[in-house]
Amino acid sequence: MNDFVSREKLPSAKDKLLFTPGPLTTSLSVKQAMLHDAGSWDAEFNSVVASVRDRLLRLAGVTREGSWEAILLQGSGTFGVEAVFQTCVPPQGKVAVFSNGAYGERIVQMLKHARIEHTVLRTAEDSPPSAATLEQLLTREQEVTHVALVHCETTTGILNPLEEIARVARKHRKVFVVDAMSSFGALPIDFEGCNIDFLISSANKCIEGVPGFSFVLCRRVALTACEGYARSLSLDLLGQLKAFDKNGQFRYTPPTHAILAFDQALRELEMECGAVAREKR
Amino acid sequence: MNDFVSREKLPSAKDKLLFTPGPLTTSLSVKQAMLHDAGSWDAEFNSVVASVRDRLLRLAGVTREGSWEAILLQGSGTFGVEAVFQTCVPPQGKVAVFSNGAYGERIVQMLKHARIEHTVLRTAEDSPPSAATLEQLLTREQEVTHVALVHCETTTGILNPLEEIARVARKHRKVFVVDAMSSFGALPIDFEGCNIDFLISSANKCIEGVPGFSFVLCRRVALTACEGYARSLSLDLLGQLKAFDKNGQFRYTPPTHAILAFDQALRELEMECGAVAREKR
Repeated sequence: MNDFVSREKLPSAKDKLLFTPGPLTTSLSVKQAMLHDAGSWDAEFNSVVASVRDRLLRLAGVTREGSWEAILLQGSGTFGVEAVFQTCVPPQGKVAVFSNGAYGERIVQMLKHARIEHTVLRTAEDSPPSAATLEQLLTREQEVTHVALVHCETTTGILNPLEEIARVARKHRKVFVVDAMSSFGALPIDFEGCNIDFLISSANKCIEGVPGFSFVLCRRVALTACEGYARSLSLDLLGQLKAFDKNGQFRYTPPTHAILAFDQALRELEMECGAVAREKR
Repeated sequence: MNDFVSREKLPSAKDKLLFTPGPLTTSLSVKQAMLHDAGSWDAEFNSVVASVRDRLLRLAGVTREGSWEAILLQGSGTFGVEAVFQTCVPPQGKVAVFSNGAYGERIVQMLKHARIEHTVLRTAEDSPPSAATLEQLLTREQEVTHVALVHCETTTGILNPLEEIARVARKHRKVFVVDAMSSFGALPIDFEGCNIDFLISSANKCIEGVPGFSFVLCRRVALTACEGYARSLSLDLLGQLKAFDKNGQFRYTPPTHAILAFDQALRELEMECGAVAREKR
């Protein structure tokens, strides 16, 4: 923690504010963490990876002892979301996906590309999806195996009713997948209460790292149940978990600099949260 | 070029040498290029992307006018190699893949995951594949549509006979895919002469950028012929080309910092090559 530089002390070190759905502005200290080449097989780097995975679980309010896992995957957030479907839907599976914006439609596109059966529950961009519609659908189409929801649609900023949808998905014992790209780290999410199986977010969103990888927080058993389903090697999330289990390493070259930056961004977020907690007390 | 810092002037600015198949050691100036947040929709950033794509073609000795394209894709080199197969092999296609090492076997794994028909031409790790074996195979199995070769097997360093294999692939009019991860930028490759359709390499290999993306150099017509084949949205190389065609932007958040670093790495390589050329003259 010695090399920590507070964000507040360096306001001028930030570039101009960016308002794109892509990378947000990061602190100078986060970028400075990239002035170092790490070997993807080095013990030093792998201890950073392990620490990042642990701290993501802590941020989510879940634990490895409680059988949760944090898996990092190369590529943008879209790669992480698609990895869940490419890895976890069985050949005869069917996904019920809510869509009220660009990111819901992107999931539909993913399912089409992977030739995965699906039903779309589409509402207008300014209308949150309804749990009652899901209840009707799951009663009617019992072959549905997975329910997918975008928590916050980045384009419109609409916050979808996670808890209500979760209740119906749980009642029908469906695998529940949440795209929390622009909410994880900013809004509280009750992983256990919502019975979330897979939640995806990315390095460059609320945690303010640099773009280069996404992460999936999941119940270990939900992922290990997916042996043999993966339709892509690069996007095989279970393969990635097995590699982390085996030796703490990525299967394929990780974006080492982006991970060092994310480690620093997490430190800064933890410092800020700690400060807020102290102030509240 | 004003901000160029010669590698030679900063020997001590490199971290200790890394001997992993992952990221190599980069120059300080390459890493310093990452001290800037670029918006993925900004004109400034997109002009860097356009320039990088043009310069990759120039490095390959081919041109856009000659109908060649350079496509960047998020993720490690493996993601780029897999993107070619996931995008370009038709549903009834079949790939003949040479394997004499870990990277040949990785291609086999990719084809298995994507449920793509394939035949493996396997030789020992210290034996280069033979063009005669391919000739026999293509005569026997006329349903083969693609031939895949790892140019240099990183693990053993063996250089496979690109020209001879190319001659047979061309004779039989097969789509020719070359994994040039650890050769492109270091060894001369005759793209036209070898009738290469797709060649893949990555940012953090011979060009000495930081890891975060790969690139595919391809004949435009070889890729545009693949409409509707893509089995993955994230790995859809044709989708990525269409986005670049439309507005010069990535479809999904690019690793902006890694691309700025690569731009600098290319400049430094061009300066070095220029110096060598001058010396030779």
